[in-house]
Amino acid sequence: METIKVVQYGLGPIGLGIVEVLLTRPWVELVGAIDIDRNKVGKDVGQLLNPVRKTGVTISDRAEEVLSDVTPRIVTHATSSYMETILPQIMEIVEHNASVVSTAEELSYPFVKHPELAKKIDERAKESGTVVLGTGVNPGFLLDTLAVALSGVCQKVSSIRAERVVDASRRRLPLQRKIGAGLSQEEFQRRVAEGRIKHVGLPESVGLIALAMGWKLGEIQERITPVDAEKAVESEFIKVSAGDVAGIQQVAKGILGGQELVVLDLRMYLGAQSPHDSILIDGIPPVDMTIRGGVHGDRATPAVVVNCLPKISQLEPGLRTMIDLPPVCPTLGWDSSDRSVMLKTF
Amino acid sequence: METIKVVQYGLGPIGLGIVEVLLTRPWVELVGAIDIDRNKVGKDVGQLLNPVRKTGVTISDRAEEVLSDVTPRIVTHATSSYMETILPQIMEIVEHNASVVSTAEELSYPFVKHPELAKKIDERAKESGTVVLGTGVNPGFLLDTLAVALSGVCQKVSSIRAERVVDASRRRLPLQRKIGAGLSQEEFQRRVAEGRIKHVGLPESVGLIALAMGWKLGEIQERITPVDAEKAVESEFIKVSAGDVAGIQQVAKGILGGQELVVLDLRMYLGAQSPHDSILIDGIPPVDMTIRGGVHGDRATPAVVVNCLPKISQLEPGLRTMIDLPPVCPTLGWDSSDRSVMLKTF
Repeated sequence: METIKVVQYGLGPIGLGIVEVLLTRPWVELVGAIDIDRNKVGKDVGQLLNPVRKTGVTISDRAEEVLSDVTPRIVTHATSSYMETILPQIMEIVEHNASVVSTAEELSYPFVKHPELAKKIDERAKESGTVVLGTGVNPGFLLDTLAVALSGVCQKVSSIRAERVVDASRRRLPLQRKIGAGLSQEEFQRRVAEGRIKHVGLPESVGLIALAMGWKLGEIQERITPVDAEKAVESEFIKVSAGDVAGIQQVAKGILGGQELVVLDLRMYLGAQSPHDSILIDGIPPVDMTIRGGVHGDRATPAVVVNCLPKISQLEPGLRTMIDLPPVCPTLGWDSSDRSVMLKTF
Repeated sequence: METIKVVQYGLGPIGLGIVEVLLTRPWVELVGAIDIDRNKVGKDVGQLLNPVRKTGVTISDRAEEVLSDVTPRIVTHATSSYMETILPQIMEIVEHNASVVSTAEELSYPFVKHPELAKKIDERAKESGTVVLGTGVNPGFLLDTLAVALSGVCQKVSSIRAERVVDASRRRLPLQRKIGAGLSQEEFQRRVAEGRIKHVGLPESVGLIALAMGWKLGEIQERITPVDAEKAVESEFIKVSAGDVAGIQQVAKGILGGQELVVLDLRMYLGAQSPHDSILIDGIPPVDMTIRGGVHGDRATPAVVVNCLPKISQLEPGLRTMIDLPPVCPTLGWDSSDRSVMLKTF
């Protein structure tokens, strides 16, 4: 496999997770690391990893300089969930003729909330011959791409329902905060109204499924409600009293002619029993899939990002989505021209 | 979506199932049907469907004539499991500048058993600018492509185990015969030795997974054993006495340096309890997936074939595999340029 020069942009927990995975791939050459945090700039990026190591890549806050100097072919990007925040970053990367694989949730399917920004990115990427892709585990895989992949066995699909139930007590503190764990009901509702409690990505996943299935939806509906703690529950970081909020339930629906064609149900709360990811396809034949225990999000998101990299060069330039890619997987790379293997009975 | 002119080649149960699905797709124009069965030739292919209908497509046994006359862009092909049987058919199709999507199990990954024939097909397809793809539900999806897709969330994979347990009593008679249901132990062993009892496709699925993961396997091992009927069991067609054979267990392993990297376990027998498809990935993070009830093979195989068609034109010419394709799904087709949709809370 050809070596791919990669720059990591954004060194929060997910960005550092991506760096960890990048360093395990023989076909990746990590050539730069960008972050605005003054406490990180100037350090070897390996100093932020666990265990600490030396990578020879110094963290810089000057994106333009890094992109010009090291000319990456792909930038792995994890700075924000929101299109408006990432737009100048993405445009700058693309103008330096590098492709982008980003964890920005809104970028996974930006055509609903930000059609104008999506068009801008698509046009600029096409001009520069680069690919821009938003991905991750949710949105990006579990509640959208995987559902589409499973529908491959169906002659016909009437509806798709997927749910992800996460025991947030085993996730990192920022996620526990984001879901409102430990808040009173009143404070939870206030923060929801302010937009401070919210998982970003469900309408994006609905849109991606509908695009794949050829459903021109009439509307996408979304709702956030608290999951109340029936009894006291606690994580390493947060204690929740009975009756307070343990986390969120967020539901998004894709509707056409009054029919709920897509229903996605995400529950993330402290103490969730039987965590799982499941996809139920009402079709011919039907498909009733469950991933027991659920997929660990903090481990999976960096994996999905890095696993996409070998496929990027096969895509048409422009703003792409996960349903444009062949299945991504954690390949270490080998010379596949010799596919011979001994065959015997045992 | 652009209309695709399709010819169906082979009108056994699976071929007719493909015709059924093709007729539901607005972007398919069925332009021909080929079969050598004297009882079928000359009839409208719709006469073989249930319910009977008129399609205007007359069954012919002259493949060359059909291919020259109606110039399909893709031929959906379901005549045999074996490379040696299908080779002249595939070559003739490709020489008429049509791509092929075939249910021939050995074609799904022909590089292990028939590297020379695979090379021939690949070269001829490249010369004619066509694509040749072997697919189906098993091999083609459940025990290979789906496992690869699921590994997309993994930073690292140590091994993949998949199993498919099918209650064959609800499948068609030829399948019940193929698995030896109702035979004595002696007769079962005799037919295994003669190669008459065998599911074709497990080593192919092992090869496909290994190719995706970048594992250069040392060997692939395969074994067929009977599943004995603990008590009498029967289907619509066959009665099995206690102690006789209810069906088969077939296991294939992909081995590298003594490690079992891939283990596929297929059990098809009358009266199987809790039928399911499952994939267990030992990785970071791990994935433990089950499809409850299992996917209905006779319905799914025609679906997978037809769902592949819209993706074929995006592939590089040559002999391709399922891991080259973006996720296939039963799209009815729409103008995806307008992706706007109303977004609201509920």
